[in-house]
Amino acid sequence: MTTDTSASAWLTVLTTTDAAEKAEHLARGAVRARHAACAQINGPVTSVYRWKGEIETAQEWQVLFKTSEGRYPELESWLLSVHDYDTPEIIATPVVRGSAGYLGWLEEETAG
Amino acid sequence: MTTDTSASAWLTVLTTTDAAEKAEHLARGAVRARHAACAQINGPVTSVYRWKGEIETAQEWQVLFKTSEGRYPELESWLLSVHDYDTPEIIATPVVRGSAGYLGWLEEETAG
Amino acid sequence: MTTDTSASAWLTVLTTTDAAEKAEHLARGAVRARHAACAQINGPVTSVYRWKGEIETAQEWQVLFKTSEGRYPELESWLLSVHDYDTPEIIATPVVRGSAGYLGWLEEETAG
Repeated sequence: MTTDTSASAWLTVLTTTDAAEKAEHLARGAVRARHAACAQINGPVTSVYRWKGEIETAQEWQVLFKTSEGRYPELESWLLSVHDYDTPEIIATPVVRGSAGYLGWLEEETAG
Repeated sequence: MTTDTSASAWLTVLTTTDAAEKAEHLARGAVRARHAACAQINGPVTSVYRWKGEIETAQEWQVLFKTSEGRYPELESWLLSVHDYDTPEIIATPVVRGSAGYLGWLEEETAG
Repeated sequence: MTTDTSASAWLTVLTTTDAAEKAEHLARGAVRARHAACAQINGPVTSVYRWKGEIETAQEWQVLFKTSEGRYPELESWLLSVHDYDTPEIIATPVVRGSAGYLGWLEEETAG
């Protein structure tokens, strides 16, 4: 286990999909490949967006990944390759503080 | 569609309200007016806070908007004008990375 | 009420636990002690992670605290002291914009 627990090196990454099983498939695949240390699936949520000039709603599931900045490009590429939406939501938010133990675990899980 | 996909220009904005229908009203109104590109409604969640010296809990719904820094001031103003709380939660978190396709869609939806 | 509403001074802090009652205990305790102004409990969510080489899933509840940068160290210490996981998730994300009224309320609730 490394001791680099620099908080600015970490991200949460959010995507959404339209079925719980698809969300679990994305979460498991990303963690298995070490594109992310872990993920939390939340849903159903109600998504609200514009489509052909009308405001539409849809049921979706959010997947929130925890990963490193270094792993982000491969997580994004992998999500784009397996997600069945044309333009899936993939956005990342910085982690600026965290407990040393948990950040160490993130480091360990995303290493190698 | 513009090609400006500068990630630092994007925010997620969180508010909460006390009914699912109110959450949907806020989400639809903001997207219709292009104050935000889209929103996700999550709930019920359990809010915990201090009120007159006691710790209270309440059922609420979270609305998470995706918008640009440029649109943030009008999203905040609009939320303050339509929200029925005296002091609603309105807080914004930066988006520092994202897929080019999705950020392009955010740009398109919040333009003009 | 102070008028310091500098947005960069605020954080959302996320932890997770394995029962709704534990989540409420963490939320109430942190708010009671003014380690945080408020918290929202969301769940159950499905957590996905690697354990002894296998990808596992577990039902968890997320607790999202709103606090100041100044209060963060004591919130983290307190969570580590009361949480029953060996290495609980504790990660913080910056709040870069917010309504003046709400940020003022955060200031008031985390003061003194």
